[in-house]
Amino acid sequence: MRICLIGAGNLATQLGLTLSEKGHQVVQVWSRTEKSAAALASKLNCPYTTEISLISSNTDIYIIAVIDTAIESLLAGRIWDNTLVVHTSGSTPMSILAPYCTNFGVFYPFQTFTIPKRVEFDHIPVCIEANSSENLDLLKELAQSISQDIKLFDSGQRQQIHLAAVFACNFVNHFYAIGEELLREKGIDFEILKPLILETASKAVVQSPALSQTGPAIRNDKITMDKHIALLSNYPDLKNLYKQISDRIIQSYK
Amino acid sequence: MRICLIGAGNLATQLGLTLSEKGHQVVQVWSRTEKSAAALASKLNCPYTTEISLISSNTDIYIIAVIDTAIESLLAGRIWDNTLVVHTSGSTPMSILAPYCTNFGVFYPFQTFTIPKRVEFDHIPVCIEANSSENLDLLKELAQSISQDIKLFDSGQRQQIHLAAVFACNFVNHFYAIGEELLREKGIDFEILKPLILETASKAVVQSPALSQTGPAIRNDKITMDKHIALLSNYPDLKNLYKQISDRIIQSYK
Repeated sequence: MRICLIGAGNLATQLGLTLSEKGHQVVQVWSRTEKSAAALASKLNCPYTTEISLISSNTDIYIIAVIDTAIESLLAGRIWDNTLVVHTSGSTPMSILAPYCTNFGVFYPFQTFTIPKRVEFDHIPVCIEANSSENLDLLKELAQSISQDIKLFDSGQRQQIHLAAVFACNFVNHFYAIGEELLREKGIDFEILKPLILETASKAVVQSPALSQTGPAIRNDKITMDKHIALLSNYPDLKNLYKQISDRIIQSYK
Repeated sequence: MRICLIGAGNLATQLGLTLSEKGHQVVQVWSRTEKSAAALASKLNCPYTTEISLISSNTDIYIIAVIDTAIESLLAGRIWDNTLVVHTSGSTPMSILAPYCTNFGVFYPFQTFTIPKRVEFDHIPVCIEANSSENLDLLKELAQSISQDIKLFDSGQRQQIHLAAVFACNFVNHFYAIGEELLREKGIDFEILKPLILETASKAVVQSPALSQTGPAIRNDKITMDKHIALLSNYPDLKNLYKQISDRIIQSYK
């Protein structure tokens, strides 16, 4: 398929590289800033623009991969004719596209993307939704060309999936960062946490996380929890989080 | 070495099986309850007892692997003579052993253990500490027989490592469980989160978690955060956690 990629951030970059490797043709990249548009266009060996009005019409699909808050103003910035337009956002309903497009849908690869680390798409769930069965078939075909795991979810389900991911991925990563911060305070290398991080993730995948819980809270080991709370006296925000999450674990396993 | 294993929980079980496979001899298992003592003793093909006074003296080392709150009463329950006694607790200082033992130390395999899933010890950091260089050498030898990653930390450092692990492992696992709970509410299988969980962990290991942060908070995407907070109206505790952790991410990347 000929693809016009609107956006040049983490997702647009990883998706563009993968689609291109799978034989699709990225015909143009648009980004608000010239620097990021040029960077991605050079990786994909295609032209770029920073003008919404100059986005090419010579494409089979427009893939919008920009920050959620920018989607609507982008949609309002040009006429989209009959070409299929999709956004890639977890928490934005498909209906946001309806006032602007005739053929539209959602193409949501469910993964965490940062540019330096390439991601293999083969086993990434791609959640799709479309305003007609023909458009859904087109999106299914596109998704199957990059992944074996295609999921049909409506906007309400997709929003809940995104919310679950904020806890199970974004907040989890921040908790890794908190671990790193606490170790750094005592001059201990983050390296020591790595086997634990990998094992915790691997355990959640082979057995339910509800069955994998360990630590002082599930044992209701108040002595250890009090020691930890005392260690956090310089971090009032972490102290609060420690108490709330421990309480939640204690309640969950009562 | 001849080892007397005091405790029969997650850590005692995994450690006993591994030490035994590496050629050490577990001479006896003690547990407060007959059921768990018998279960582990049968796996290790050794005798067991539930009486502290009947713990065998025919051993080179006592390894105490019980809940932190039980260590002290256990220590007070018999005379330990000159044999080396170690505990396996992250948050308990080595000094707890001093009033009861002549030769003592700490042997802390830094990993999350639950019985059904066997853990490979080869790359698990084993944190050791001892009250003499002779005892430290003995512990080093024992640790090296099961792992390639031996770390010397004092009790203060070990306590901080344990605290970091509560955030980066115990709380992380609870956040996986929250993800599972949120998906279940909409009838969506936890399966869909698995690639994301593995990628998030794998990214933290190859690049610093501080560089891996993604999600609405780091983008300061208030529209998405407000949508998520609205979705959590039935979960006041999760709504609070969502706000606090998002604020912390926003502040960290300012």
